[in-house]
Amino acid sequence: MANKQIPIPYKIYLTEEEMPKQWYNLRADMKNKPAPLLNPGTKQPMTAEELGAVFCEELVKQEIDDVTAYFDIPKDILAFYKMYRPSPVVRAYELEKKLGTPAHIYYKFEGNNTSGSHKLNSAIAQAFYAKHQGLKGVTTETGAGQWGTALSMACAYLGLDLKVFMVKCSYEQKPFRREVMRTYGASVTPSPSMETNVGRAMNERFPGSNGSLGTAISEAVEVAVSTPGYRYVLGSVLNQVLLHQSVIGLEAKTALDKYGVKPDIIIGCAGGGSNLGGLIAPFMGEKLRGEADYRFIAVEPASCPSLTRGKFAYDFADTGMVCPLAKMYTLGSGFMPSPNHAGGLRYHGMSPILSQLYHDGFMEARSAVQTDVFNAAVTFLKCEGILPAPESSHAIWAAIEEAKKCTETGEAKDILFGLTGTGYFDLYAYKAYNDGTMTDYIPTDEDLAKGFATLPDIG
Amino acid sequence: MANKQIPIPYKIYLTEEEMPKQWYNLRADMKNKPAPLLNPGTKQPMTAEELGAVFCEELVKQEIDDVTAYFDIPKDILAFYKMYRPSPVVRAYELEKKLGTPAHIYYKFEGNNTSGSHKLNSAIAQAFYAKHQGLKGVTTETGAGQWGTALSMACAYLGLDLKVFMVKCSYEQKPFRREVMRTYGASVTPSPSMETNVGRAMNERFPGSNGSLGTAISEAVEVAVSTPGYRYVLGSVLNQVLLHQSVIGLEAKTALDKYGVKPDIIIGCAGGGSNLGGLIAPFMGEKLRGEADYRFIAVEPASCPSLTRGKFAYDFADTGMVCPLAKMYTLGSGFMPSPNHAGGLRYHGMSPILSQLYHDGFMEARSAVQTDVFNAAVTFLKCEGILPAPESSHAIWAAIEEAKKCTETGEAKDILFGLTGTGYFDLYAYKAYNDGTMTDYIPTDEDLAKGFATLPDIG
Repeated sequence: MANKQIPIPYKIYLTEEEMPKQWYNLRADMKNKPAPLLNPGTKQPMTAEELGAVFCEELVKQEIDDVTAYFDIPKDILAFYKMYRPSPVVRAYELEKKLGTPAHIYYKFEGNNTSGSHKLNSAIAQAFYAKHQGLKGVTTETGAGQWGTALSMACAYLGLDLKVFMVKCSYEQKPFRREVMRTYGASVTPSPSMETNVGRAMNERFPGSNGSLGTAISEAVEVAVSTPGYRYVLGSVLNQVLLHQSVIGLEAKTALDKYGVKPDIIIGCAGGGSNLGGLIAPFMGEKLRGEADYRFIAVEPASCPSLTRGKFAYDFADTGMVCPLAKMYTLGSGFMPSPNHAGGLRYHGMSPILSQLYHDGFMEARSAVQTDVFNAAVTFLKCEGILPAPESSHAIWAAIEEAKKCTETGEAKDILFGLTGTGYFDLYAYKAYNDGTMTDYIPTDEDLAKGFATLPDIG
Repeated sequence: MANKQIPIPYKIYLTEEEMPKQWYNLRADMKNKPAPLLNPGTKQPMTAEELGAVFCEELVKQEIDDVTAYFDIPKDILAFYKMYRPSPVVRAYELEKKLGTPAHIYYKFEGNNTSGSHKLNSAIAQAFYAKHQGLKGVTTETGAGQWGTALSMACAYLGLDLKVFMVKCSYEQKPFRREVMRTYGASVTPSPSMETNVGRAMNERFPGSNGSLGTAISEAVEVAVSTPGYRYVLGSVLNQVLLHQSVIGLEAKTALDKYGVKPDIIIGCAGGGSNLGGLIAPFMGEKLRGEADYRFIAVEPASCPSLTRGKFAYDFADTGMVCPLAKMYTLGSGFMPSPNHAGGLRYHGMSPILSQLYHDGFMEARSAVQTDVFNAAVTFLKCEGILPAPESSHAIWAAIEEAKKCTETGEAKDILFGLTGTGYFDLYAYKAYNDGTMTDYIPTDEDLAKGFATLPDIG
């Protein structure tokens, strides 16, 4: 509940001096640590050396370290952060008015940069460490395109080559998204491609395939490990990514603390978990240390429900099974979300950190069908102005649901949600919504069983 | 020159308390006032009553008043401004580094809102006064789409109907731009349409016409004056628009004053003049009152060079000749920019205020071909991160030119330019640039003569 003495502005900005100088590593405060990554061949924990074949050295250290609570943010990354950060915590006065709710709604808005999302926070970090290691370039995959765009911006800034494998259906639906990446100098290849063994095999097995994140990851990893001077980088799921994204939560907490606001509920959309993990990090740290209590809600699409309907198990991170195995909530690497699913949040698994926290009862999860999500988005954009990404709109939907409950109970709860990005490159989805042709899809238990059948058998 | 004692952050934000509470009317400080609008039939100055048939009452007052220096910003507009303003003044440290210039480059960035540009500053004002007058809706035209998008956001917020006539080539090139407007609830019609007399006549005379701003204006005015409860609103050129846009310059001046920075050169792109007029307003006021001196540079496309190659004369504001006549630098209402011209800045005339100031020697003007403009844009986006609108990139181009001169002379000039918006809906133009298919066009004297032939003969 807020200290009601201080008037709260529409937007709370930190000064550059107030910006975090360190990332916070939530694992340091977890009693049950996330399980280690396993070598897909030996099924033994991956060593730093093994991980170093795929990832940059510094990032491997960050990936493995589950005891150091804070990592200094290198000054070059801080300089880049200052070009688009701090991002504001916005008080959604107009949305509150529209809903007639006694709740106070806040959102941390990460969309005010050309990549249009929070992904840039980790992109610049990963690109920086690659450059620092003297690499020539990096490879990655992108689904909805936010991550690929963010990375292309970071690589352009640092003068690093970038090869992006873009899931084919997005490549075709979002010609302008790929054009942004090209403008920043990245090469963009639709996946499955004919440039890799994995891609050729997929094209042979499933001619005309729309692609999937899992396949695009495999292709990017294959190119990275077979090209001298290249490494692979990933925009979500990994521990290192959540570490970098902690900047979101650290800024949000500092901003709210200035006004004596302690959120009762913190809500984030969840695909691989990068935004949610970053947003909740310092708040969850307090909860784990017993210093404060918060309700955390992860919101995922009903069409790709890894937390709410998945299994907590070791699984492949990619379709080609070349990546390390991670213990996480998963639908199985063979799970494919329905083609009618718009936007991101289509990965089959969930961050091992968030998976463990959810498993241990520190976090709630719920799912939403996409027409409900777009209804929430349109309510929001008409009063708050910003056209949100479909991903972010999952969090809007849950925030509105919670605010409506406050209307019923009369409670003036403080609700904080993550508005991870803008939907400026998702207009084909909004068009379907506007035209009334958008449909919902909830996988049947049989659909899920097919994905679970692809889970590996880890003793 | 800056006070070098205080370190200047990457972004200078004002607090909400520091935001302007009044708009500044530059005309109050002009000795030579802009010439009045004339009735296209009688060629006599338009009365308030005549203007009231087209425009909202309060806006007519603002349009005519050339003596009142400040107008209070209504509190409902201030509330809306707080959702996306104050906009930052950004120190382009990375661009300076890239250029190796001793100059200090600042830009006032107006693109951090879903409309993607400064147009929202006047859109909310015009929509507010329409609502306040009890109107049902408004009509307008849009070319590149920034104005239409901004107005659709403002109308959605206030619950006002909006009918947009969108220049046909943009309507087809930018399906997502029109989808944004639709998502906010606006109706969007390609112009020339079959819904108006002007549109039908154009379609008959020029079958398959790509449309023009001049025609779209005529269509929007025709619908506004023939539909009860509707008025017409316009995003540039008019005095009222420059009044609202003064918020850009007022914020910029307050921000720079905090750090003791007095810009030597102020640069803005110029189409109809809304951004440039807003950015320079308080600085130009000081110059007109003899309190300070600044260099002002208007940058226009070489393909639509109203200031640099136009005539200072009374002209029609629209192709259909239903609008008032304005005295301005103009290429003639019959002038059509080449279809290869990307982005906005394609209006045949220029704000009467800016035209008068330019005519009286208070401002410079120069033009740029679009490949030079896109070269500047790409230099900028790779180091500063933001993908700029083609319009805004004209100002970037000139700022870089001036910064390079400083490199030659060793002067540490302070350069301020207006970054009016983002190019997220202009990727087809960036694609042409990336593909190497973008071409330049400079009208010949014969081309211009055809436009001048459409100028009216005003005694």
